Amino acid sequence: MNHIDARLAELGIDLPTAMAPVANYLPYVVTGDLVVVSGQLPAMNGKVAVVGKVGTDVSVEQGQHAARLCFTNVLTHLRAACGGDLGRVKRVVRLGGFIASPPEFTEHAAVMNGASDLAVAVFGEAGRHARSTIGVPALPLGAAVEVEGLFEIG
Amino acid sequence: MNHIDARLAELGIDLPTAMAPVANYLPYVVTGDLVVVSGQLPAMNGKVAVVGKVGTDVSVEQGQHAARLCFTNVLTHLRAACGGDLGRVKRVVRLGGFIASPPEFTEHAAVMNGASDLAVAVFGEAGRHARSTIGVPALPLGAAVEVEGLFEIG
Amino acid sequence: MNHIDARLAELGIDLPTAMAPVANYLPYVVTGDLVVVSGQLPAMNGKVAVVGKVGTDVSVEQGQHAARLCFTNVLTHLRAACGGDLGRVKRVVRLGGFIASPPEFTEHAAVMNGASDLAVAVFGEAGRHARSTIGVPALPLGAAVEVEGLFEIG
Repeated sequence: MNHIDARLAELGIDLPTAMAPVANYLPYVVTGDLVVVSGQLPAMNGKVAVVGKVGTDVSVEQGQHAARLCFTNVLTHLRAACGGDLGRVKRVVRLGGFIASPPEFTEHAAVMNGASDLAVAVFGEAGRHARSTIGVPALPLGAAVEVEGLFEIG
Repeated sequence: MNHIDARLAELGIDLPTAMAPVANYLPYVVTGDLVVVSGQLPAMNGKVAVVGKVGTDVSVEQGQHAARLCFTNVLTHLRAACGGDLGRVKRVVRLGGFIASPPEFTEHAAVMNGASDLAVAVFGEAGRHARSTIGVPALPLGAAVEVEGLFEIG
Repeated sequence: MNHIDARLAELGIDLPTAMAPVANYLPYVVTGDLVVVSGQLPAMNGKVAVVGKVGTDVSVEQGQHAARLCFTNVLTHLRAACGGDLGRVKRVVRLGGFIASPPEFTEHAAVMNGASDLAVAVFGEAGRHARSTIGVPALPLGAAVEVEGLFEIG
């Protein structure tokens, strides 16, 4: 067991089984020493678990939980990209966060912290990343949050 | 004629003449072996051909057509980035899809398949890519869809 | 003083003091010869200076000013990424622009030019970049515009 798998166990996190891409694309592509992970929905057991708009049907806390769930799905694909060894991750380079929410919502950053905090909890200093977070009117399948990732591996 | 141009001919696809960027930026930048292509609108003959919101004025099928059209514009610029030789494309790394649509719309992934399916039809295995698709309230010039791309070339 | 700092002085631009990230992430990450700068808000003196939706409470001109302000914040972080020496910037590779605006707005590109024009004014030919611009219903802290950047450094 590498140190990242040990850390996941310590945090009580079981990475979800990968949800099949909802269309004709791949969950990740490796180019050079970069891994690009496709936008992930808050999926559990192959279904989107958090549906709706943050700020109306979904609370900020539920949104954070959704962002965290998105990131566990990102990790599932990142692990596959690393041939099963998350110890090869050198750096979380960038996360992109999309928060389905109404025009008057302003707490997108707090929601996205559900993903960012988990990245730092799992990878430590190497988990600190650049980030862009925006509101969107809606996401595929009605998901409340979507998170994409860019990673450097060795 | 390289094998990609042959494949385009086989698919009956004439790449559109590049639409001038609608503002002060370039259609693509090459850095290392990566090509970053700017967000492309569904343009034909220098004009945006599919305007409106998918799910209200524009059907999912028309949205797919728009996404396909966006991707042909991406290809036009990618070809220029390759000095005219699309055979140099090693990998479609990532596509980003932006679907102008109302808050209740959920079929963004189906719309974006218009671009993804064409990427795979043109480049085969090398055309399979990572992808993020989101809804947006509106796009430049009222376009229904916008697609950006990241490519690895040799 | 390197030629870029000289150019900034010539343009009368004082880069803003960095606003602390509004959450658990970094303002930039360097990977290889690329710098990824997190999405920046139109901040001045540590506060978001342009709040609201472009096209309703905020004019296109004010939106351009906001985009320009976002880009000065991008530059502040880029300079730190370069160890203080903006002369190391080889290329502005890509800017991403997010314009908080209503569904009927169509002038996103004009707004984003506030950032793009400044990039070219500061870096000359090396400042010409790929770009994706989209509308969004809302941004963190109610900001009118957000700009992210990707740069090549030497």
